[in-house]
Amino acid sequence: MNTHPEIAYFTEDASVETVNARIADSADPRLRQVMESLVRHLHAFVKDVELTQEEWGVAIDFLTRTGQICDENRQEFILLSDVLGVSMLVDAINNRRPTGATENTVLGPFHVDGVPEYEMGANITKQGGRETCRFEGRVTDLDGNPVEGARIDVWSDSEDGYYDVQQPDIQPRHNNRGVFTTGPDGRYWFDGIKPVSYPIPDDGPVGQMLGHLGRHPYRPAHMHFIVGAEGYDPITTHTFVAGDDYLTSDAVFGVKGSLIAEFEPVTGGDTKWRSPYDFVLHRVGQGQAR
Amino acid sequence: MNTHPEIAYFTEDASVETVNARIADSADPRLRQVMESLVRHLHAFVKDVELTQEEWGVAIDFLTRTGQICDENRQEFILLSDVLGVSMLVDAINNRRPTGATENTVLGPFHVDGVPEYEMGANITKQGGRETCRFEGRVTDLDGNPVEGARIDVWSDSEDGYYDVQQPDIQPRHNNRGVFTTGPDGRYWFDGIKPVSYPIPDDGPVGQMLGHLGRHPYRPAHMHFIVGAEGYDPITTHTFVAGDDYLTSDAVFGVKGSLIAEFEPVTGGDTKWRSPYDFVLHRVGQGQAR
Repeated sequence: MNTHPEIAYFTEDASVETVNARIADSADPRLRQVMESLVRHLHAFVKDVELTQEEWGVAIDFLTRTGQICDENRQEFILLSDVLGVSMLVDAINNRRPTGATENTVLGPFHVDGVPEYEMGANITKQGGRETCRFEGRVTDLDGNPVEGARIDVWSDSEDGYYDVQQPDIQPRHNNRGVFTTGPDGRYWFDGIKPVSYPIPDDGPVGQMLGHLGRHPYRPAHMHFIVGAEGYDPITTHTFVAGDDYLTSDAVFGVKGSLIAEFEPVTGGDTKWRSPYDFVLHRVGQGQAR
Repeated sequence: MNTHPEIAYFTEDASVETVNARIADSADPRLRQVMESLVRHLHAFVKDVELTQEEWGVAIDFLTRTGQICDENRQEFILLSDVLGVSMLVDAINNRRPTGATENTVLGPFHVDGVPEYEMGANITKQGGRETCRFEGRVTDLDGNPVEGARIDVWSDSEDGYYDVQQPDIQPRHNNRGVFTTGPDGRYWFDGIKPVSYPIPDDGPVGQMLGHLGRHPYRPAHMHFIVGAEGYDPITTHTFVAGDDYLTSDAVFGVKGSLIAEFEPVTGGDTKWRSPYDFVLHRVGQGQAR
């Protein structure tokens, strides 16, 4: 005997409405917007593929293992976000730029605060590297005028494909890191090494997933940059080494065509490579509406 | 200078296609289908709400904490799936039934294997309860014929709102659990207590989320049943106590109108309540296509 109205009870067809109707009027409006959308898209996914009970169990186990492998040195959920293109999508949505401004890409997990500020032209490699490289270029505004006082924060991996923080016992602190400030001509130049491609950590659940999908875990070689100046929107980006094998298959989808930099061989002198790249800043408020 | 084609590089507009194009031809076809759909819906969500970088960080932290609180006695990701209606949706999709068959609902985390098999009429409450109750009814097929040899696996919480496995030091093992088998008339009857409503564990990330959404963590009082017989699809379900305050706001959306059972007061004798409910099984292969 069922004398009770079906309204408010869960049904396959009205699953989204039933769940979202529970959010209280007092809930924060933005939280409501995000959660309602999440439930709508999550249920659409489950319905679309008609997820089986066994597959649901695999998903629960995968998410649990992804959380449990995280510690102060490892963030497997960021890695998951990265390899699913979610990190780059969030980056893209939050960094729409006017045409001509340098494009953004993901920060990555290896940025460090409190890095030494060097005189322009310094060498950031504290542990010798064979493929020495001069990085140089200009920081300008959208009209091509030099930006004075621009702060340039750079970091790269070693020739073995590891950042200093990944090898605290092997690499000197702040190896291949430095902060520079431009003068009136907006020019920058410093010495480092030509970066190399490397795999993201692939011995956990995310690496297993990549394996099942037939995807490799490599990132193409790149130098990280954060370039900012008073009155301008800061740019978090990389320059990628032209010709790298993984440019079109970056495991985290960080590559944009405009961020590929040439690395030109230099003959004579101590430096073997030269990589020119100019950065174009846009003023705060010049971000592009969609 | 950009002499490299944009194809294969990530863009906001083509984010889904870029990510899904990476799946190798060798990948399992079902895995491909599930992952392509997941990426499509996940990116649609991020675009729909234009998730900010800060909100993304909150989500990463939430998922990480949800994984880290899990242990052998606690599964916070199942709880998350439950409160977002995903568990019930998967249950619904995988248990479409012909009209007239008893409806399914979620198994829940407190089922135990190896429970004692009792003679029909036994009392499953090993620790006294005041609100004693006789559960009884018939197991039939879709045509109303009795099903002989149906196995009925039942479990409920105590009068304090905890299952035995949640209180191994307080409750006797297998308190309020039992397995029964029907005879030729398809009838079942056993004694227990009238179940009470209880909160799902709400001292973790999922409880915090419910708090922010203004949702309570309670489940309406219910008795769990798994009813199966040779040649029939097994039914995993609950009967809910008619009149419970939380029937229309079950924290995990488990209630269906057809599963609400009457609990009638009984005068005289030791038993204070009587709850009749009939189960209707359908044959294997009689599941309903959508």
